[in-house]
Amino acid sequence: MPSPLSDASQQVRIALGERSYDILIGPGLLAATAPWQGLPRSAAALIVTNVTVAPLYAARLRAALAPHYRQVHEVVLPDGEEHKDWSTLNQVFDTLLSRGCDRKTVVFALGGGVVGDMAGFAAACYMRGVPYVQVPTTLLAQVDSSVGGKTAINHPHGKNMIGAFYQPARVVCDLDTLATLPPRELSAGLAEVIKYGPIADMAFLDWIEANIDALMRREPLALAHAVRRSCEIKADVVGKDEREANLRAILNFGHTFGHAIEAGLGYGEWLHGEAVGCGMVMALQLSRRLGLVDAAFAQRVSALIARAGLPVVGPALGAERYLELMRIDKKAEGGEIRFVVLEKPGQAAVRGAPEEMVRQVLADCTR
Amino acid sequence: MPSPLSDASQQVRIALGERSYDILIGPGLLAATAPWQGLPRSAAALIVTNVTVAPLYAARLRAALAPHYRQVHEVVLPDGEEHKDWSTLNQVFDTLLSRGCDRKTVVFALGGGVVGDMAGFAAACYMRGVPYVQVPTTLLAQVDSSVGGKTAINHPHGKNMIGAFYQPARVVCDLDTLATLPPRELSAGLAEVIKYGPIADMAFLDWIEANIDALMRREPLALAHAVRRSCEIKADVVGKDEREANLRAILNFGHTFGHAIEAGLGYGEWLHGEAVGCGMVMALQLSRRLGLVDAAFAQRVSALIARAGLPVVGPALGAERYLELMRIDKKAEGGEIRFVVLEKPGQAAVRGAPEEMVRQVLADCTR
Repeated sequence: MPSPLSDASQQVRIALGERSYDILIGPGLLAATAPWQGLPRSAAALIVTNVTVAPLYAARLRAALAPHYRQVHEVVLPDGEEHKDWSTLNQVFDTLLSRGCDRKTVVFALGGGVVGDMAGFAAACYMRGVPYVQVPTTLLAQVDSSVGGKTAINHPHGKNMIGAFYQPARVVCDLDTLATLPPRELSAGLAEVIKYGPIADMAFLDWIEANIDALMRREPLALAHAVRRSCEIKADVVGKDEREANLRAILNFGHTFGHAIEAGLGYGEWLHGEAVGCGMVMALQLSRRLGLVDAAFAQRVSALIARAGLPVVGPALGAERYLELMRIDKKAEGGEIRFVVLEKPGQAAVRGAPEEMVRQVLADCTR
Repeated sequence: MPSPLSDASQQVRIALGERSYDILIGPGLLAATAPWQGLPRSAAALIVTNVTVAPLYAARLRAALAPHYRQVHEVVLPDGEEHKDWSTLNQVFDTLLSRGCDRKTVVFALGGGVVGDMAGFAAACYMRGVPYVQVPTTLLAQVDSSVGGKTAINHPHGKNMIGAFYQPARVVCDLDTLATLPPRELSAGLAEVIKYGPIADMAFLDWIEANIDALMRREPLALAHAVRRSCEIKADVVGKDEREANLRAILNFGHTFGHAIEAGLGYGEWLHGEAVGCGMVMALQLSRRLGLVDAAFAQRVSALIARAGLPVVGPALGAERYLELMRIDKKAEGGEIRFVVLEKPGQAAVRGAPEEMVRQVLADCTR
């Protein structure tokens, strides 16, 4: 199939055999024709979105889909991580069933990471699986959560505990949607962009440092490069380890600490990307204490995180609460907490750490 | 790996590439050593069972697993199709999380079809997937629901609407557990055994007819053959079409009508197998009206269903209600109900039928 995009746009392939798909990246894709061609055919489509995104972009997506689906249904969820739970997910099932949607129905996730995770999980489970398309409208979703097929809802005891690996049929990143992003959401997305540098690509880290002001100003070319390179790195990792047997866990750099912050404060208090930004500062300090990177490198990346408008000091939940929350992290094994640490700048690995050392990191990085 | 079973027992392989697994069939397997060797290793196992089965067999399974897992946890669910819902499923998640179970934890489904469907779906979703083992204790689960990786919960609007295709690591059918089965449950299981004849194997249909009294008396050799041959046929179909793109749907012979009966009466009123038995009578009549099989054949199979102690007349829900319920069947496409019908004795296919003809069948087969 020829590229459905103009030269101005980009395309990244996720190579997963029969589950392979493309990420389309460019301006104006919601209003373009090509991104909506060649998708799975069905009588019906369902747009899953939220109260914030619906007024901005739902009509545009509906118009784009109208030529391809006889019926385009819509379900509008509440906005926020605190709603990423079963009762909200059930709104999607209720809509699908009340509209008589069959197992060919195509689900479109229009929104940020929460919408994408829930719409994807609903698609994974509805009649044991219907196709879905990610249409991420936040930077965080475009560079990370919409790519790679991780879907989930939260459980009161832990983040993303109930979910599925379920790949979308396509990801459509319309860069124009980033213009309406609140500043906090932009910063949260930059946390995941920055992440790819220290774990996988030092040249990208250099580039982000040189362009962080342009990214904060939302310069289109800078955002386009950040999204494309982030997706390329993620595509490479996911292509090698779809179900996180091993390598894929490095994408969770900063997330062990970050998930504890999110759950400890109550979902929705900090944005996911904010918690990850702060969690990376902690993971950098842990890597330093383990003797894997020097203090200068930890400081360098932490400074970049701060320049992205992200918190670099964690909430004072108390070490016991942090440890308790981290013990139910999905990477934990047999009760031992496992962390993504840097083996050296540009390379990450998963390993345990002495509890005393983790306590020192928490003491250093929380207030 | 050599067969873990003695010569007295049987083994059927489900060939699905890297998701392949064995069905072990024989007497005394719960108390034997071999069936519990070579499973995925973990610090912890969770037995999912129900209030009826737990007092009978949980201690035996726990003893069998003790040498292999440091901790063997247990969650005991209420019994019955009416509990196959999200709130009961959540009991499994709560147990997994409160016990600190990590993503290597192995789930064991000890019970009938409801327990197997829920434990399997919980395993599919917990931390995006942990291994599980089916230990079916009803005839229906041994010959059908434990094999092939279909997992699900019900939604008020339709049966098995929320679920996943997720294959177990092994299926262990201890034939001794059939001794404690209530008569209604035995008959319900025979419905799924009988099913395999008209859709796939006329020689098996002959054998069932010749041995129906022995099966009703629970003669061990007859039950062993019925379980093995049923599993072989199911393994063959599932191996060719794991995710029901096409062929696999024939295993749902009698289920379109049957699911409508279950949902229409309220889950748990009729057993699933009872509804399927009656649904097959309806599907036979539909096949006859479509000119695919003759009246004598429809009568022959219906008589066998009756001899198995199953209902052959459906509840008088009214044709409108039947049609409404069948329109949300998973096989429906674009609002058209699709039925599994016999193309000829021993061969099935999926197709639509004129609504007037379906109404005639309902008029003939309900009271």
